Amino acid sequence: MPELRKDPVIGRWVIIATERGTRPSEFVQESQSPRDGFCPLCEGNENKTPPEVFAIRRTGTPPNSPGWLLRVVPNKFPALRLEGELNERDAGIYKRITGIGTHEVIVETPSHEATLSSLSEEAVINLLRAYRQRIIDLSRDPRVRYVIVFKNHGAPAGASLEHSHSQIIALPIIPKRVQEEINGATEYHNQTGRCIFCDMIRQENTEGTRVVAENQEMLAITPFASRFPFETWILPKKHKANYIQCTDGQLSHLASLLLNTLQRIDRVLSQPPYNYVLHTDSPGNENTQQYHWHLEIMPKLTRVAGFEWGTGFYINPAPPEEAARLLRECEDKNK
Amino acid sequence: MPELRKDPVIGRWVIIATERGTRPSEFVQESQSPRDGFCPLCEGNENKTPPEVFAIRRTGTPPNSPGWLLRVVPNKFPALRLEGELNERDAGIYKRITGIGTHEVIVETPSHEATLSSLSEEAVINLLRAYRQRIIDLSRDPRVRYVIVFKNHGAPAGASLEHSHSQIIALPIIPKRVQEEINGATEYHNQTGRCIFCDMIRQENTEGTRVVAENQEMLAITPFASRFPFETWILPKKHKANYIQCTDGQLSHLASLLLNTLQRIDRVLSQPPYNYVLHTDSPGNENTQQYHWHLEIMPKLTRVAGFEWGTGFYINPAPPEEAARLLRECEDKNK
Repeated sequence: MPELRKDPVIGRWVIIATERGTRPSEFVQESQSPRDGFCPLCEGNENKTPPEVFAIRRTGTPPNSPGWLLRVVPNKFPALRLEGELNERDAGIYKRITGIGTHEVIVETPSHEATLSSLSEEAVINLLRAYRQRIIDLSRDPRVRYVIVFKNHGAPAGASLEHSHSQIIALPIIPKRVQEEINGATEYHNQTGRCIFCDMIRQENTEGTRVVAENQEMLAITPFASRFPFETWILPKKHKANYIQCTDGQLSHLASLLLNTLQRIDRVLSQPPYNYVLHTDSPGNENTQQYHWHLEIMPKLTRVAGFEWGTGFYINPAPPEEAARLLRECEDKNK
Repeated sequence: MPELRKDPVIGRWVIIATERGTRPSEFVQESQSPRDGFCPLCEGNENKTPPEVFAIRRTGTPPNSPGWLLRVVPNKFPALRLEGELNERDAGIYKRITGIGTHEVIVETPSHEATLSSLSEEAVINLLRAYRQRIIDLSRDPRVRYVIVFKNHGAPAGASLEHSHSQIIALPIIPKRVQEEINGATEYHNQTGRCIFCDMIRQENTEGTRVVAENQEMLAITPFASRFPFETWILPKKHKANYIQCTDGQLSHLASLLLNTLQRIDRVLSQPPYNYVLHTDSPGNENTQQYHWHLEIMPKLTRVAGFEWGTGFYINPAPPEEAARLLRECEDKNK
């Protein structure tokens, strides 16, 4: 059973896999499937994954068979499991809890070659709706305190499978970084009566130098204190604490701007590996005035990997204003 | 002039380079010198770096000429500069200060091929004393609030030069992660009257399962809530808040255990890239009872890169007890 352990000094929780023996060789070589050309996420290989928990399918096709457009399956090697009870155990200064939770994979397309940025807007709308549905479903378990949605694209960004996919982890704790954001936003709200992200959107619109693209509902910016070159956030223009409150219409606008932004990043940075993470309020906190959901996209650029990894301290060689200008001005060859 | 910018929500400072134009191609390709076989850190190329600020030299050799064993030079492409005044400027919700500070490179050996783990104990003692001396010297500037010492080994860990070196950055702010550690330790001390790191050392010695190696003065452990596989910390057994308080004798013991630990990591993980970061109390805080300096070593293993990068949330597939056992039991072929 995996477990969650808390750093006694700074209070950060870490998931530790404790069930299988550690073979050092596992951590040494670089690997990205398909190993030997086989991909468990491809159409036709449905029996190579655990049974699907959600899918968007062509009418009449049965579960766990071909005919799907999007498919959500439990991770075959989950970081957490939904078995057993949530036990907290202390030993001296150390705290640990059983690794209760879920770890799911969202297969974004039946095509092995497609990348998210090459999908149709309709396919991305399906993906964003699937995020919403899975967050809602997973949050029903009273043991779940937070649901984190993220995507690793490309081996340097941590993707262990080449086939385009996202991941969802339901956690029995609120991650430190999320809690810090909620706390920071709450403090600002207590002081000013306003949402800090709404103020950020207002200021970005006024200054204009960090705006990448926008549409009626969504705004893409390179944040003022970007940690990484070409880091880009997408925020809803109207205040909304929790992603699950998004209407279908808003998700359509998000899909359109996400595609547009990823295509810009692809053009300017030659299709880099990247990570994105959905930042949303915790389940049950749906109508708060403090927090404001958003998506953080972080291209993984080889020249700047390394030091920041373990220090929490960032040196960003690309001013966000320059990055925004390049992303804004890049010619949109696909349109 | 570079600048420091503060994230308005969570209060993290980031160094942003703002002086040179951003060429996207700079961030795309992987590169590690010597480009075309030329290395500016090699003996004989002293005029290819800015003049040295500290060196350990053979008797009679003049500065900036061959004959050195260790050499500290300003970074030719510094993240911060020690010119001008420390100005804080606010604009709306955003805060920035001028990028006052220094960025130095410690060339650990005149040999291009040597790695830190292959150096003599004497050379490592010189390095650890150079860290102490540079922290003391840089802290004299009243604009300096913190001095961070770190090492990137190997391109995947962010080293842009192959020649073995460490880096020192003097900052006009205390990094968030450092401040969190100091705050966490202070809170524990307020509650218990004890140092949390001293309690950690006591508990690790009692449990034994996470001890990698030790000597009279120093202890190497894989921390209970390790973020990364084979993450290893070296701590002084006797309470000491600030690294600059270390005696020559203690630094000799640190050199010996650091070499021993890096050699174990090399053997078990086939000479992986790694980062290490010195965690020490802020300048002027030398005799506090709360904080306890230590060195955090993080092997950079390709299989687990990615997601954690931007989320602050960690999944560690290698239990620290397993990692410690492997590091402890690996045969010491060099002895």
